[in-house]
Amino acid sequence: MSAAPAPLDLTGDVVALARALCDVPSVSGDETLLADLVESALRAVPHLAVDRHGDAVVARTELGRAQRVVVAGHIDTVPIADNLPVRVVGEGIHRELWGRGTVDMKGGVAVQLSVAAELSDPVRDVTWVFYDHEEVASDLNGLGRLVREAPHLVAGDFAVLCEPTAAGIEGGCNGTLRVEVRVPGEAAHSARSWNGVNAVHGAHEVLARLASYEARSVDVDGLVYREGMNAVGIRGGIAGNVVPDECVVTVNYRFAPSLTPADAEAHVRDLFTGFEVTVTDAAPGARPGLDAPLAAEFADTVLALTGGAPAPKYGWTDVARFAELGVPAVNFGPGDPLLAHKDDEHCPASEIEICRSALAAWLRGTR
Amino acid sequence: MSAAPAPLDLTGDVVALARALCDVPSVSGDETLLADLVESALRAVPHLAVDRHGDAVVARTELGRAQRVVVAGHIDTVPIADNLPVRVVGEGIHRELWGRGTVDMKGGVAVQLSVAAELSDPVRDVTWVFYDHEEVASDLNGLGRLVREAPHLVAGDFAVLCEPTAAGIEGGCNGTLRVEVRVPGEAAHSARSWNGVNAVHGAHEVLARLASYEARSVDVDGLVYREGMNAVGIRGGIAGNVVPDECVVTVNYRFAPSLTPADAEAHVRDLFTGFEVTVTDAAPGARPGLDAPLAAEFADTVLALTGGAPAPKYGWTDVARFAELGVPAVNFGPGDPLLAHKDDEHCPASEIEICRSALAAWLRGTR
Repeated sequence: MSAAPAPLDLTGDVVALARALCDVPSVSGDETLLADLVESALRAVPHLAVDRHGDAVVARTELGRAQRVVVAGHIDTVPIADNLPVRVVGEGIHRELWGRGTVDMKGGVAVQLSVAAELSDPVRDVTWVFYDHEEVASDLNGLGRLVREAPHLVAGDFAVLCEPTAAGIEGGCNGTLRVEVRVPGEAAHSARSWNGVNAVHGAHEVLARLASYEARSVDVDGLVYREGMNAVGIRGGIAGNVVPDECVVTVNYRFAPSLTPADAEAHVRDLFTGFEVTVTDAAPGARPGLDAPLAAEFADTVLALTGGAPAPKYGWTDVARFAELGVPAVNFGPGDPLLAHKDDEHCPASEIEICRSALAAWLRGTR
Repeated sequence: MSAAPAPLDLTGDVVALARALCDVPSVSGDETLLADLVESALRAVPHLAVDRHGDAVVARTELGRAQRVVVAGHIDTVPIADNLPVRVVGEGIHRELWGRGTVDMKGGVAVQLSVAAELSDPVRDVTWVFYDHEEVASDLNGLGRLVREAPHLVAGDFAVLCEPTAAGIEGGCNGTLRVEVRVPGEAAHSARSWNGVNAVHGAHEVLARLASYEARSVDVDGLVYREGMNAVGIRGGIAGNVVPDECVVTVNYRFAPSLTPADAEAHVRDLFTGFEVTVTDAAPGARPGLDAPLAAEFADTVLALTGGAPAPKYGWTDVARFAELGVPAVNFGPGDPLLAHKDDEHCPASEIEICRSALAAWLRGTR
């Protein structure tokens, strides 16, 4: 393997920092090396109090301000698709970083680290959170762990998650519900299939309802959330000569944050009337919360400095964890979220720079 | 483990012999011990010439008769479902053997061995074939191996397979064709499903055609073959948050022996017009062949002695291998074929006895 990576330089160019962060692989479960580097770099910043919790690192100003803003981001990525180290493509304002993590979300982490190191005198206290295990099962999530085990480290009046939003503000998020719709049958040898009942054939009705389903768009606090109802899996059959006695369709409903998970479940049960429906997974959405004063102020700053108007977030993100705590939260970070997890993941350098400027300006109170 | 099993007694009670055969486990791939016992017992019979080929054993009379009959059966079983050793249930004419292999097909093997040992002077020469690997992939099949590597050992003018038929004659068999019907889509995150095309939803049309398909019944040489068109598997989806970009339905068509595999393929392609269809497996059927003089004579004997009228065989059996060689072949053996492979597999003792009587009478020429 290669030599140990160099210490992170938080005070230099933010794009170079993003590139350095990407070039230290940190696939979920393997974040320790990067967490060590982040921790060391932050401990060298005199105006920050630093805590380590597993592979999460939390750095706080303690200026006794009346309000506290939490700025959070995860340091893990999905598996590397042969797309590291980072390649720099283009020049000047067209410069882009190509590679795993550039969008989701080491560009955002670079913005956090750079502003954290610079800003010794923000108008509100700031808690900078860098956490692990965001890209895997929810119960492993590092931010969730902090909420459960060290809630004082993530307490605040408003939260910004530096997830990719192409430098706009994306507020709230849809909820997500996963169910299994089960179609029963009766097994038989396929050579004498009239002795059985084919469960896969019976599933045609489930799929027909999905194919003709028209997903809604719902206005919540002024933002329009587009829903989705999708089969994300189907399985049936145990052998090439057996009439299947069961077919199971896994359906994922992404529902507007005006619905509770219970509302969503009722809607799905209604859609699949006549079939056995089992909920396997549910997470509430988060209302955009842009009516909160801090959120509105931040949105104004971003609109003025990056041109990004508030929009709904479609992917479920950890803003919902803050929403559950009653803390208004928005997403704001560099990179096109549609490129997250893709093999051709890449991020304009200019978005990293502009997000850095906007976040710093707002926290500095110069806007 | 238990002590080595006792040698097989071919000259005693045929039901006891069937029970002894069952109590020597011989799941496909693990037939050597039973093949050894069968070989030893047959080598002790003075009127038989015995050959061993892998775990297949072939014993022949060499009386120079004008015609030769092949009587074949496989000695392997599907895996044991905690249903050995054999239990004897009931008494007298209600006596039954319960356990793996009693139906498929050690009852039939006992009939073969018992008649082979007794009949030193049949009116036609007889080749007794006991083979391995029938219950697994076709390319492993012991009878197929003999056909390829030692065809003189399985040559003859007529063949009887002692597969379970409840002591009737079942002639020919349906062919079988397996295809994959592929529905394409376009992957997307399920949170932004409008960016994709859901392949599982698209499969509703494939399933609808299957659900409304009316299987045909086809008269072939006087026997009516019932067909079947079934999804035996369906798969789609790679993760709980991804719109599937592919759904594959595996369809098994059991077609009447008047159709060639090419006819069957054309019929399936026609049914799934508009979808990509890939053939993964095909085996021709076998016409019943009851118009062949030896077959007709045997059918008359069976009808007179067991009351079993000729009927079509629905499962694909190795009669099709003989049909491909141009040798008329029928199935005839004890046990209800619907109980084959079931955990409650069991066979009436009386059917083992009546099959033994009918086969011996016909080969002896006393009917």
